[in-house]
Amino acid sequence: MPSRLLLVASESQKLGAMVSRSPLTRGLVSRYVAGTTLDDAMAVTDQLRRQGLEVSLDLLGESVTDLADAERATQEYIEALPALAERAPGSSVSVKLSQLGVAVDQRACAQNLDKLLVAADEHGVLVEVDMEASSVGKAILETFRAVLPRHQQTRIAMQAAMRQTLPDLQSFQEVKPRIRLVKGAFLESLETAAQDKDEVTARYKWFTTWALENLPDPAFGTHDDACIAHVRSEADRLGIDRRAFEFQMLYGVRRQLQQELAREGYRVRVYLPYGSQWYPYLMRRMAERPANLLLFLRSLIGG
Amino acid sequence: MPSRLLLVASESQKLGAMVSRSPLTRGLVSRYVAGTTLDDAMAVTDQLRRQGLEVSLDLLGESVTDLADAERATQEYIEALPALAERAPGSSVSVKLSQLGVAVDQRACAQNLDKLLVAADEHGVLVEVDMEASSVGKAILETFRAVLPRHQQTRIAMQAAMRQTLPDLQSFQEVKPRIRLVKGAFLESLETAAQDKDEVTARYKWFTTWALENLPDPAFGTHDDACIAHVRSEADRLGIDRRAFEFQMLYGVRRQLQQELAREGYRVRVYLPYGSQWYPYLMRRMAERPANLLLFLRSLIGG
Repeated sequence: MPSRLLLVASESQKLGAMVSRSPLTRGLVSRYVAGTTLDDAMAVTDQLRRQGLEVSLDLLGESVTDLADAERATQEYIEALPALAERAPGSSVSVKLSQLGVAVDQRACAQNLDKLLVAADEHGVLVEVDMEASSVGKAILETFRAVLPRHQQTRIAMQAAMRQTLPDLQSFQEVKPRIRLVKGAFLESLETAAQDKDEVTARYKWFTTWALENLPDPAFGTHDDACIAHVRSEADRLGIDRRAFEFQMLYGVRRQLQQELAREGYRVRVYLPYGSQWYPYLMRRMAERPANLLLFLRSLIGG
Repeated sequence: MPSRLLLVASESQKLGAMVSRSPLTRGLVSRYVAGTTLDDAMAVTDQLRRQGLEVSLDLLGESVTDLADAERATQEYIEALPALAERAPGSSVSVKLSQLGVAVDQRACAQNLDKLLVAADEHGVLVEVDMEASSVGKAILETFRAVLPRHQQTRIAMQAAMRQTLPDLQSFQEVKPRIRLVKGAFLESLETAAQDKDEVTARYKWFTTWALENLPDPAFGTHDDACIAHVRSEADRLGIDRRAFEFQMLYGVRRQLQQELAREGYRVRVYLPYGSQWYPYLMRRMAERPANLLLFLRSLIGG
């Protein structure tokens, strides 16, 4: 509910202050979130780069219902660019178009994205557009399509589970898009998306090969061993260099694996969220991985 | 991602065992969830009924990707009916059609729902169909529409924010449906749904009047003071008895208010979740209300 998000945002500040005073809770949050400020994010970026990892910086924030919030988010992204470009060349920023207003006013959102892209080009920073629920998926793809000719480096997340993904990808004629291939995490009908776990994995593998053969510099957003193994073996089979594509994983998820892949010469980009609105993001990570909350609670309770 | 849900389900069991051993964590969970078993749910139901509240029992579970899971959920609902009917006459069960398989196979889901409705009719238990993301919203409404003539007591949640809600409601000709009016909690495009907080509240109020005038026994699912006040004043103005409609609220949310309304003679139904898959539900409640997690963490840390 829109009103809840505002509430969450303001309570996040209080929680943030409280969490940062306690070393126990700081541990849980800082596993998944770089911190609340750009300085925090840059410090973690430095650490990750020392481990041979690249980053995609995500300014935390949920879908906006007000264009003023969308402009504010755009501005905050733009303000992050100089530091990111200077301290971590080759980095990207990941942006949710719902945060730039796509559900409120698609044209205003396109203007926000364009503003961000112009500034990002000036600083040599890549922009990656996250995919969201299918209720706004079409608007997101249209907005991306409109900016692509002038900003060909821009990347968009595409979901292997969605039946529309292949026709969507094939519809790009003159400029082939950079994509981040993900499995797809939203509730969809069977007509819209594959549901069966094995089928989704099989589709992910099929799109992996297709992307390696047809698209420039694809990114593989996955934490799944089978999918990662498939990316590696297909790249080998096709004679594609380890630097001609990349893996993407969330900050705090499969950290060992991220470092191993980097040591083996693969490009690995870590999706690194920061900002005051970290609370809903953290709860989503917790919802996916009860074991993490379990560990956290155990450490608190001493059980 | 489908695979995550299975993981969450199995880890929920471990977490459940751990949580139930610790009085501290038990407090957080048991504020929002009746427990893991039907016995737990019946014990809480008894408590609530002593306070003059009615219940709608929700068997926790997420969207299934496998029809065997959908049948299992249906069967578990059916098995809960005798105890519910005997110990708490007038109760309902709330069901998510995604849990009965609507995203996998709409016809199989309709059969599951029909099986549940036939059993519920035998026991005199109402069934309420929850609304979900718009990717499956149309299939949910179609499935409801198909069963309505034979099961006219069935209730469906309708979202005030959605622009389709009025035409959908007006399209019911012979049998007027019972509805639970909610604001709407999903990410939607502006063409599909109102976004502005005040506009959504205004739409909720408008639909409140419309439902009181046009529909049998409407339920108002809201925790919002302004919306509740509007329901009360419109019912007064229209000369509608306090027992001819009901309020619905989540277990653990605005508990004082629930009891106050019941004392004033309003019908109040508490949405009461139980089951082993409580973890994602609890995280959603936490995501909405950081203050609750804050209180919980404070009590743990002694801060």
